[in-house]
Amino acid sequence: MLDRNWFSEAMDGTGSAISLKITGKLHEETSNYQKIEVYETTEWGNLMVIDDCTMVSTRDNFLYHEMMSHPALFTHPAPKNVAIIGGGDCGTLREVLKHTEVEHATQIDIDERVTRVSEIYFPELCESNNDPRAELLFIDGIKWMQEAQPGSLDVIIVDSTDPVGPGKVLFSAAFYKACFEALGEDGVMVQQSESPLLHEELIRCMSADMHKAGFFATRLLSFPQPIYPSGWWSATMAGKGGLDTFRADAARERSFETRYYNEGIHLGALATPQFLHDL
Amino acid sequence: MLDRNWFSEAMDGTGSAISLKITGKLHEETSNYQKIEVYETTEWGNLMVIDDCTMVSTRDNFLYHEMMSHPALFTHPAPKNVAIIGGGDCGTLREVLKHTEVEHATQIDIDERVTRVSEIYFPELCESNNDPRAELLFIDGIKWMQEAQPGSLDVIIVDSTDPVGPGKVLFSAAFYKACFEALGEDGVMVQQSESPLLHEELIRCMSADMHKAGFFATRLLSFPQPIYPSGWWSATMAGKGGLDTFRADAARERSFETRYYNEGIHLGALATPQFLHDL
Repeated sequence: MLDRNWFSEAMDGTGSAISLKITGKLHEETSNYQKIEVYETTEWGNLMVIDDCTMVSTRDNFLYHEMMSHPALFTHPAPKNVAIIGGGDCGTLREVLKHTEVEHATQIDIDERVTRVSEIYFPELCESNNDPRAELLFIDGIKWMQEAQPGSLDVIIVDSTDPVGPGKVLFSAAFYKACFEALGEDGVMVQQSESPLLHEELIRCMSADMHKAGFFATRLLSFPQPIYPSGWWSATMAGKGGLDTFRADAARERSFETRYYNEGIHLGALATPQFLHDL
Repeated sequence: MLDRNWFSEAMDGTGSAISLKITGKLHEETSNYQKIEVYETTEWGNLMVIDDCTMVSTRDNFLYHEMMSHPALFTHPAPKNVAIIGGGDCGTLREVLKHTEVEHATQIDIDERVTRVSEIYFPELCESNNDPRAELLFIDGIKWMQEAQPGSLDVIIVDSTDPVGPGKVLFSAAFYKACFEALGEDGVMVQQSESPLLHEELIRCMSADMHKAGFFATRLLSFPQPIYPSGWWSATMAGKGGLDTFRADAARERSFETRYYNEGIHLGALATPQFLHDL
């Protein structure tokens, strides 16, 4: 049994829970959209929790943020314009802006409070928020995408919560269609797609819906993410013109620091577990 | 907070816990060596717990057992004689015997009760126990290794508990030296080496000690393992003559079923996360 000294997320239907030992609650508020909490943990730094689901810990967020950004950016031949839907903690934005060829990155998260809380408790994730190439919008990302100029984006990163509540509409063929239209001809989108072990059906549907929306190819990226259910997470990449364009040399000779990502990790993350291959 | 309907393992010093929802306890005994429990879970099948640490669940053990066996066996040029130290649940033995070129596999676990309990609650892991090529010994594996005929083994798999209590001596230069002597010239050993995120120091020391024992090369394999701390696990391979001998064609054209392992997963597991590369 785990007592009040632990924060636990027991994910519905998975029969499993991930817990971190905490020393106290640093913050709690209910924004216009959701409940936002921050805990101080004993070994994992700060922990942000939204609507009772773990979102980000200081210790392990690098895995998720690096894998949500670098594979897609090194797959597009020349990423200049990037949009991040969700991503209010700003960790993905930071990784995107490490790519010097990116000229403009727009983060569109409906809830400004997530970013304001992140600025206080995860300042390292927000260190590029004042980059002149960064634009932070706090509006409806789906509407923004529907109204984006066709062909204007190179990479779209959907850094969303789980496919329940306000995040659900981000997991729909209609949204993928809007992304498809907003992307240029070499455009790449990537979206978090839950656990390979626990959410096979979601992964299958997402890929099918992306194809239906017009994308030529999809690929699953899998990677460890200790504070998410099963500790094993994934993102699905979709390419308008294909995805066989990994710039391996650029990844190997990248000018910035990473903690998880490198060329080998990129290729390894693309390997398909046999049980998913057999689907 | 998680109540009595959950089994939780809170790992010392990691500030994290993994929990599975349970419907009841199926078995409990204290053998001559350790406390062995089996729980029935809601979503993960049966769960074996030894000295309060999760060992095996029906649902996710395939990840661990496949990665403890197939990479090493497909790296050795012609594995005929295999020894498994520990591995009393027999899941590794089953994977090893899928390789038709293996002529003899000896499993040496000090605690016969683990195997007897596994036969009842994890019968699928024990389905090769009566294979004429299998030999199950319930004696001290370290002593067995020290007395093994020099050069008599092709692959050694150390499928042990954590480096505490009775398992600790398996994480020592003296034991690696005994393994080195027992292996033939192309010999490969592989040993579970805990979490890449939580146990960097152990991983570093194990590799250094293997080199000291005479091994020419070591490589880390990393893979998901949801019920172990951080959900991310590793094994360290050591090669007497080197490890650049992956039989990729044989792995691709393997005659047996796997659920996680395939050629791509093998190569992907060998990719080194940047933070370990930087060590």
